[in-house]
Amino acid sequence: MKATNNANYGDLEYIEGGVCAAKGFKASGYYSGIKAYMQTGADGNESPVPGKKNDIALLVADVVCNTAGVYTSNKVKGAPVIVTKRNLAANGGKAKAVIVNSGNANTCNGDGEEKAQAMCDMVAEKLGIASDMVIVASTGVIGQVLPIEPIKKAIDPLFNSLSYTGNLEAATAIMTTDTVKKEYAVKFTVGGKECSLGGMAKGSGMIHPNMATTLNFITTDCAVSTEMLQKALSDVVKVTYNCLSVDGDQSTNDTCMLMSSGLAENNEINSEGEDYDTFRAALYQVMANLTRMLAKDGEGATKLVTCVCNGAPDLDTAIIVAKSVIRSPLVKCAMYGADANCGRIMCAMGYAETDCDVTKADVYYISEAGKILVCENGLGLKFDEDKAKEILSCDEIEIYVELHQGKAEATAWGCDLTYDYVKINGDYRS
Amino acid sequence: MKATNNANYGDLEYIEGGVCAAKGFKASGYYSGIKAYMQTGADGNESPVPGKKNDIALLVADVVCNTAGVYTSNKVKGAPVIVTKRNLAANGGKAKAVIVNSGNANTCNGDGEEKAQAMCDMVAEKLGIASDMVIVASTGVIGQVLPIEPIKKAIDPLFNSLSYTGNLEAATAIMTTDTVKKEYAVKFTVGGKECSLGGMAKGSGMIHPNMATTLNFITTDCAVSTEMLQKALSDVVKVTYNCLSVDGDQSTNDTCMLMSSGLAENNEINSEGEDYDTFRAALYQVMANLTRMLAKDGEGATKLVTCVCNGAPDLDTAIIVAKSVIRSPLVKCAMYGADANCGRIMCAMGYAETDCDVTKADVYYISEAGKILVCENGLGLKFDEDKAKEILSCDEIEIYVELHQGKAEATAWGCDLTYDYVKINGDYRS
Repeated sequence: MKATNNANYGDLEYIEGGVCAAKGFKASGYYSGIKAYMQTGADGNESPVPGKKNDIALLVADVVCNTAGVYTSNKVKGAPVIVTKRNLAANGGKAKAVIVNSGNANTCNGDGEEKAQAMCDMVAEKLGIASDMVIVASTGVIGQVLPIEPIKKAIDPLFNSLSYTGNLEAATAIMTTDTVKKEYAVKFTVGGKECSLGGMAKGSGMIHPNMATTLNFITTDCAVSTEMLQKALSDVVKVTYNCLSVDGDQSTNDTCMLMSSGLAENNEINSEGEDYDTFRAALYQVMANLTRMLAKDGEGATKLVTCVCNGAPDLDTAIIVAKSVIRSPLVKCAMYGADANCGRIMCAMGYAETDCDVTKADVYYISEAGKILVCENGLGLKFDEDKAKEILSCDEIEIYVELHQGKAEATAWGCDLTYDYVKINGDYRS
Repeated sequence: MKATNNANYGDLEYIEGGVCAAKGFKASGYYSGIKAYMQTGADGNESPVPGKKNDIALLVADVVCNTAGVYTSNKVKGAPVIVTKRNLAANGGKAKAVIVNSGNANTCNGDGEEKAQAMCDMVAEKLGIASDMVIVASTGVIGQVLPIEPIKKAIDPLFNSLSYTGNLEAATAIMTTDTVKKEYAVKFTVGGKECSLGGMAKGSGMIHPNMATTLNFITTDCAVSTEMLQKALSDVVKVTYNCLSVDGDQSTNDTCMLMSSGLAENNEINSEGEDYDTFRAALYQVMANLTRMLAKDGEGATKLVTCVCNGAPDLDTAIIVAKSVIRSPLVKCAMYGADANCGRIMCAMGYAETDCDVTKADVYYISEAGKILVCENGLGLKFDEDKAKEILSCDEIEIYVELHQGKAEATAWGCDLTYDYVKINGDYRS
């Protein structure tokens, strides 16, 4: 029995390669010593420490790519978000390269835009392209000046190590408190041509609905117009990353980019229809799996917790209710403690911001150990506590809610709240 | 130096007596064994265990009181909330008694309204009054049937021990995971008559803005019309209990009642003016201090954290920004770890739901160890980390935010997020 009723989120064939799975994308990663430089003035890349995690990533496409983006709605925006949005607006949604650093968010620091622009300029100069063809992103501590020196020194090594199999190096470089790299790719066929779509993601804290994650880069060789890329990305973000909550905090730097090289040589998808649906399904499968990985690697998490809300009058209601349950700190603690407290589920549904009548719901807990009904028609049941404990002691738990108000369904992804979340975030900067 | 710039929230004289401080209010508390009965069927009050915390409280007024209430906005409402609202609506805002149990929220359990009504009936019968003159409230686990038997057996002992100094017994009875009793009272003069106003509160988890706390009972002997009681209560709740967040969860049973016996014999306050202002100031001082106690006793909390937002264009904006900061799990963890991470403050201000420009703010940390500016005009500063650590290591911390957008100010109350919050909530029911 599956821990969730849709754990694969599609049946397209999984392939290796992450952000390099699609034709025409090279990547690399490098340890430049940004954090060391911030702390001591020492420039890590002059004396590289073996085993140090990469902190800067480069992605370069063989051709100019149609490109779509979705960004944080936080009013305090990271400088790289501002610069990337400006670049894509200037050239109508085109990009050829991406540069990303971890260790410093380049936000709330005075000269952020200047530094983000400098990162674009350095990459553009190496490639002989306009600066606005470069996407820039940063993740890490907010409110500190980004040292440009280590990044400057990293440019040559990054270009020298670019490779069609460099996806792992790049995926490592964008990690902060993440404990695992997050990559996923699929292959599919459009107009008789084999296409690939894959991506990498980072984020484990400061993750919340409305651009839930931090950094996501997805590439495809399927030819798609910028307009249809944007439509697919915005649609799929709504039911994947925006249905993810680790801690209720929404980052200043959230960025999700989707680039198409078109090298699969299919006829460009520029309207809705069967080809678009196929492409959208591939994008959903990749983004839903990345979302799942982000939730499972939530800071301090010991369990992946999903809430599937079914029987809602419409999709928006299903999303709102599922997210409200997943976000509740008391539900998250109960999942950590394997405590089948259905009152907390009802409570969180009750304060969900929707007019839908949530007071008559059924609530089940589901995991590979089984399924148990704990609340029926809004009323708590007497149930087998030992069985419930066994179900909730698994490391993937689904809270299944049936509203009996319609046919819409949505999934929200989250995790338990643990001692380690507190520990990790009690002193993040050190 | 004060840990907060308004720790007393007024300069009226503090007096002992809590919910019995005002003339005409008797209270009692009793251990009826509700939880024991739920777990084993054993009825605690037949064989009382020495040292067991009271779990049922009674408050009886000498006269019929004008009464106002504010309740949870959660759509899943506890049965006692439904019954109390119905009672007050039926008689135009009058009450003579209050019965409250802890250990079971009497919510989502099928026969909740019937049981809540039975609690009112039992009290009304003893007093020879109509049932709608009784206020009922419950707090504890949601989704389990409330055993009425131990409550029935508690009625006589509760009436037999009613006393003008029974406030402590009652304040103990309404506690759940609270570690300390919460009482506060003041005296003041209206129209040459000495008046008193005092109350008791409970709540340490499932506490969040919009009727932030769980149960609050405030009494006064100052004569005030029901209409003006409601106005004052609604106004003051907005800037006190609704500015409190422990965990972002909003309870199904939140209830705040304000009763006036009128026994101070002042001319009844039935319109705005000087007397009303004096009364409102007393109510604010009591409710703000109870709010402060609730925040300080937040589940697992080691520190009281307040956020004062100044320089806002209006009160609503100041409240929204201050609450967003106090609610952020990452800010709460940073406070626990004494980590002066100003980026998290800016981030939480950035996702506050207001159109106000929060990107140019100054941020200070203040405690009895001093005051330090960590963010100026929206930009993180280099500051003395040792000094910041010293300031944040105190047990009462103020985050002071200056928006430079106007003259409105608001305070929000909260606490740090700790290992113990997770521990307490990992297995609340056992």
